[in-house]
Amino acid sequence: MTYLDLYNSIIKKRSFLCVGLDTDFAQIPDQLKNLEFPLFEFNKRIIDATAMYAVAYKPNTAFYEAEGALGWRQLEMTVDYLRKKDPSLFIIADAKRGDIGNSSEKYAKAFFEKMDFDAITLSPYMGKDSIMPFLKYPGKWAAVLALTSNVSADDFETLPLLGHIQMLDDLSAMYNSEGFFYSTTETVGFPLFKSVIEKSMRWGNINNIMYVVGATRPQKLAEIRIFCPNHFFLVPGVGSQGGTIAEVAKYGMNKHCGLLVNISRDIIYAGNGKDFADAAASKAAEAAKEMSIFLKD
Amino acid sequence: MTYLDLYNSIIKKRSFLCVGLDTDFAQIPDQLKNLEFPLFEFNKRIIDATAMYAVAYKPNTAFYEAEGALGWRQLEMTVDYLRKKDPSLFIIADAKRGDIGNSSEKYAKAFFEKMDFDAITLSPYMGKDSIMPFLKYPGKWAAVLALTSNVSADDFETLPLLGHIQMLDDLSAMYNSEGFFYSTTETVGFPLFKSVIEKSMRWGNINNIMYVVGATRPQKLAEIRIFCPNHFFLVPGVGSQGGTIAEVAKYGMNKHCGLLVNISRDIIYAGNGKDFADAAASKAAEAAKEMSIFLKD
Repeated sequence: MTYLDLYNSIIKKRSFLCVGLDTDFAQIPDQLKNLEFPLFEFNKRIIDATAMYAVAYKPNTAFYEAEGALGWRQLEMTVDYLRKKDPSLFIIADAKRGDIGNSSEKYAKAFFEKMDFDAITLSPYMGKDSIMPFLKYPGKWAAVLALTSNVSADDFETLPLLGHIQMLDDLSAMYNSEGFFYSTTETVGFPLFKSVIEKSMRWGNINNIMYVVGATRPQKLAEIRIFCPNHFFLVPGVGSQGGTIAEVAKYGMNKHCGLLVNISRDIIYAGNGKDFADAAASKAAEAAKEMSIFLKD
Repeated sequence: MTYLDLYNSIIKKRSFLCVGLDTDFAQIPDQLKNLEFPLFEFNKRIIDATAMYAVAYKPNTAFYEAEGALGWRQLEMTVDYLRKKDPSLFIIADAKRGDIGNSSEKYAKAFFEKMDFDAITLSPYMGKDSIMPFLKYPGKWAAVLALTSNVSADDFETLPLLGHIQMLDDLSAMYNSEGFFYSTTETVGFPLFKSVIEKSMRWGNINNIMYVVGATRPQKLAEIRIFCPNHFFLVPGVGSQGGTIAEVAKYGMNKHCGLLVNISRDIIYAGNGKDFADAAASKAAEAAKEMSIFLKD
């Protein structure tokens, strides 16, 4: 799927909603728990109820792996079901993978060949080797972690880099023989996540790389848009984690929308009784309605 | 398993060898390919042939996921087989996981409850939230990526951080109101991987955290030992990737060995005929013999 395919799907559905399928066996309604494939049966009902409001779905592999090989089987079944339900859906594996080249090739095979995902979330820590194997697949995407929605994103993602300097006083800025900056006034380092985005933008293009940027610090979306105006952002953290659609749209939207806003728990666990799918549909409809306002222009 | 349990196992076997089970369906001998569980059957023969020379095994999840749910089943079977074969073996999931807290909890369940791994490799990018759920399990370990063996480790892992300064001229060193360093002489930033190790050392202890440090830049092991003297290092990159046992031992060993040196392809694909397991045993024996020299004192 290309950038424009995704944009057209957003315009057609008047929504940039991604439904996160963080399907936890402990949290699904009791009436499903004794079925042979409880996670899949839950997902199937959620998908049927919400597909008219969503352009993307994002199963989180952690929840399927927690159920062992049977969980992995239900992940496969979920992708198959999504693909048949609506071929325009963008299906993201929230897998946070990333390894040396020959291992990343195997992960790419797992998620793009054995399963028909459109995209996979990847950790950039190990650098280019760990991302490139995923970009070899035409129409498939790497969703690279940039600034995540969790509190401890500040442990490393926002640390300022010395090799990445804003010169506040150009006249006094100089470099020493190792290439490190020194100044007679002061220096400000740019955060690691900025380096992640700027470097990885050169490894692919707007048709195969998007960035994970959390909704919990929406002003950061605007800062990132300055140096990354055209890429899609996959934005988690709306709902349970505290972010809002309005702020994400205000700070993160570009002229081709450029946003997939993920909501997981607030939609899929909106209800817990026999009507859980209806409750999910209401929440998804509500989110899509709010999103449609920002798509008017 | 504690730090001392691992040390005792190393002393008993006179080896700090970890055999990497990067079991690739395309590379296993043809006579196994038509079996119901070819990856497992291959692993079983490799384990039987090498268990007397190895203290640890490290299945790489990428290779199992590439075979879908059936691959995941064979990963489970491999862990079960290792546990029964020799309860002293240290079993590492080379999974490179890491996500927000509630997802990492599910990964911990997958690898420490559904499967009986002793350790899992984790990417530190998302910070403390993504590591802590694994440290709640007594006797289980997080193997945190620090400086990896691949070329593109330099993309981010070795970038110098501004907030992490060595003061070359203390008299002129000052901090501005944002806490950023400025100096009238010059500043040198410490690399990201150092910050990863120093911060994460405080999240656990030598009994539940080890670090992944590649063998491809062995002098770095000595640099890391200065600020991280007591933790175990899981060292990939020996063999196919170019590192050597002698250099890793020289620069990385501490008084309780403190090393698990992983060899994957050089052992498991030493042969490709009917005698592939014997060929693997020879290579493992050779590695263990070399390691035993460094364990003499």
